[in-house]
Amino acid sequence: MDVISVIRTKRDKGELSPEQIDWVIDAYTRGVVADEQMSALAMAILLNGMNRDEIARWTAAMIASGERMDFSSLSRPTADKHSTGGVGDKITLPLAPLVAACGAAVPQLSGRGLGHTGGTLDKLESIPGWRALLSNEEMLHVLDTTGAVICAAGDGLAPADKKLYALRDVTGTVEAIPLIASSIMSKKIAEGTGSLVLDVKVGTGAFMKNIEDARELASTMVQLGTDSGVKTVALLTDMSTPLGLTAGNALEVRESVEVLAGGGPADVVELTIALAREMLTAAGIKDADPAKALADGSAMDVWRRMIQAQGGDPDATLPVAREQHVVTAPSSGVLTRLDAYDIGIAAWRLGAGRARKEDPVQAGAGIELHAKPGDTVTAGQPLLTLHTDTPEKFDYALKSLDAAWDIAPEGTSFTANPIVLDRIA
Amino acid sequence: MDVISVIRTKRDKGELSPEQIDWVIDAYTRGVVADEQMSALAMAILLNGMNRDEIARWTAAMIASGERMDFSSLSRPTADKHSTGGVGDKITLPLAPLVAACGAAVPQLSGRGLGHTGGTLDKLESIPGWRALLSNEEMLHVLDTTGAVICAAGDGLAPADKKLYALRDVTGTVEAIPLIASSIMSKKIAEGTGSLVLDVKVGTGAFMKNIEDARELASTMVQLGTDSGVKTVALLTDMSTPLGLTAGNALEVRESVEVLAGGGPADVVELTIALAREMLTAAGIKDADPAKALADGSAMDVWRRMIQAQGGDPDATLPVAREQHVVTAPSSGVLTRLDAYDIGIAAWRLGAGRARKEDPVQAGAGIELHAKPGDTVTAGQPLLTLHTDTPEKFDYALKSLDAAWDIAPEGTSFTANPIVLDRIA
Repeated sequence: MDVISVIRTKRDKGELSPEQIDWVIDAYTRGVVADEQMSALAMAILLNGMNRDEIARWTAAMIASGERMDFSSLSRPTADKHSTGGVGDKITLPLAPLVAACGAAVPQLSGRGLGHTGGTLDKLESIPGWRALLSNEEMLHVLDTTGAVICAAGDGLAPADKKLYALRDVTGTVEAIPLIASSIMSKKIAEGTGSLVLDVKVGTGAFMKNIEDARELASTMVQLGTDSGVKTVALLTDMSTPLGLTAGNALEVRESVEVLAGGGPADVVELTIALAREMLTAAGIKDADPAKALADGSAMDVWRRMIQAQGGDPDATLPVAREQHVVTAPSSGVLTRLDAYDIGIAAWRLGAGRARKEDPVQAGAGIELHAKPGDTVTAGQPLLTLHTDTPEKFDYALKSLDAAWDIAPEGTSFTANPIVLDRIA
Repeated sequence: MDVISVIRTKRDKGELSPEQIDWVIDAYTRGVVADEQMSALAMAILLNGMNRDEIARWTAAMIASGERMDFSSLSRPTADKHSTGGVGDKITLPLAPLVAACGAAVPQLSGRGLGHTGGTLDKLESIPGWRALLSNEEMLHVLDTTGAVICAAGDGLAPADKKLYALRDVTGTVEAIPLIASSIMSKKIAEGTGSLVLDVKVGTGAFMKNIEDARELASTMVQLGTDSGVKTVALLTDMSTPLGLTAGNALEVRESVEVLAGGGPADVVELTIALAREMLTAAGIKDADPAKALADGSAMDVWRRMIQAQGGDPDATLPVAREQHVVTAPSSGVLTRLDAYDIGIAAWRLGAGRARKEDPVQAGAGIELHAKPGDTVTAGQPLLTLHTDTPEKFDYALKSLDAAWDIAPEGTSFTANPIVLDRIA
């Protein structure tokens, strides 16, 4: 087997054989296939595609590159959720304790943010004392005793994916549906969950800008999960505008705690409950009522135990950015658009996100929204509040907001997108 | 400027801007753009193409990455030739002294073989004492005093191409017409020749397997040369069967000397004279007769002076391989096919070529042909003689000859391909 013949096969629109896929993933993990060879193959895959058989084998080969976890010692069924990432997407924070409060075990191996989408671990790290990095034993212990755990994925899980993901990030080959699907699913299948709900974001703030691409990605992943014995369902959800009223690390934790306290923005509550119902159904848990678990404080109880089990203080004051800048509405009327991507870029520039993996993030940085699409606004009212520890970044952040919204004349009729656009099972 | 936006532009079928091209070539030469990023871009170029403007700018950027040579001090007009490479393609050896004997200065910056096609420098190095590596001053001196020089291209000429060529070789991105054309032409234009004749090979033994691809490559290169003020002409020539009766290093030198002595195989003589006429016309030299310069020994005189000027002994006995193996015709009839690629692979396996750049080659290894397509053969007569210093390779070489020829019943009418298939100016 040699790598050039593998690259040529895909370059010339052929189908990679199981032997070629197994070999190239293993050889790349061991460093026998070089980065410049794998990136050429990744570009050929992006442009020429892979069929279902190839994607399934590619995923299996990435799983085989590392260890597999085992949750069979737990007394509860496991229910996992993955979001493809968006702006203001703090759903994992209220969702994991909520589903745990309803009887499932919820392992959430999460990542950090890169670019305009935030990372769940970055958000939780704004809670004083909280630790993202757990050993496999610690992780199982937190999961077993509290019902939920949100932590960093260990190095042992799908190391081929880890290496390939870092390579795709610097070679313009992120946006390949076969590679996105196999990257996500290899980690989820290796993790050993019994069921999985996928939140595939669609819109300007998401990787998938249109619903056709999102549907293809979702059905590819549902098929991969199902074929591997994981009960898998996907919701396609709107990411044309930020979720909730905050984008940023501590800002999103605060909003998540509001949801766990029975309040919070309607769209965050709606999506959290919709995903919770799917997770519970997939895990085979009937007769649980997530809305009640938010109202009666049982989800909040799990949250507090989960944060404490990982060293965090759920009662600590969250960090606040040193400087604020208010952006006001330039005219009166109906807010018909508030762009997720532009808000995400602005929050990132304020310090909420990172440009390179090794950069730190600011816990307090980000953006508060004072209106959402469909709301009536008055000229001069606050529209956004920008937060940062580095006020010299305000101008740079404001540049990405130049065309971030549309205000239509008063009385214009407007129907917001539904949160859940489609369901694929 | 960042490399990912450049990669994305081409990945998404856009046109690279002059600024993007200048930046990416310069940044790659300086090591700011990494190999894995350039290989992803090369694959995107291979699959999505470049238009004429992009190819011209890409070529100019590669020229600008290094030094330019200057032949203006020479008293004669310069005439250069480049072949895209084939099996048994020793044409440079008789051609350069022949054209010099007719009044042009012929600088031939040549390469080594990789894979099944031989390299001109490897062939000449089978002459005891001959040196491929000359300084720019030495090169100009040999050219000025003998009229012709065949030597290795210096490191200073288009270093971006040197780096990119090595990368393409290991990433399955060699076969991109825009990259082949810009690679060849950047070196030829930087070299500073006044005129250039391109021998674009077509057939199983060539990079270009069909005439449409060869025509596209040829017209791309002619346009590039013409736009840069180099008088450029291309001949498309047949490479479905080896040129002449030998493939291998010393074997081809011997055949070249036969041509210079007024003999040699008809196809080698025909192509040498056809290319010589094109070179002389392009250089503005009229009334020269290459056939006469072969017959009267004046081309041979230049050959002897040129070899001596680079330390070689034109009278030395050429190396002979230690072992021979004769392949006989299995039946009687008309030889209708003798495949260039299969013969090239067999010669390579016998030791005439190298698998990796750092491998040595055997001076004596290769294949002698005892018949060519159109010849009548008798069962049991010698068809090929295999030469090698490593007889344990005979079996491996013979494997590539399993389907290397067709013999039709006696009396079958057969018309061989013409040598020159088309001319593009």
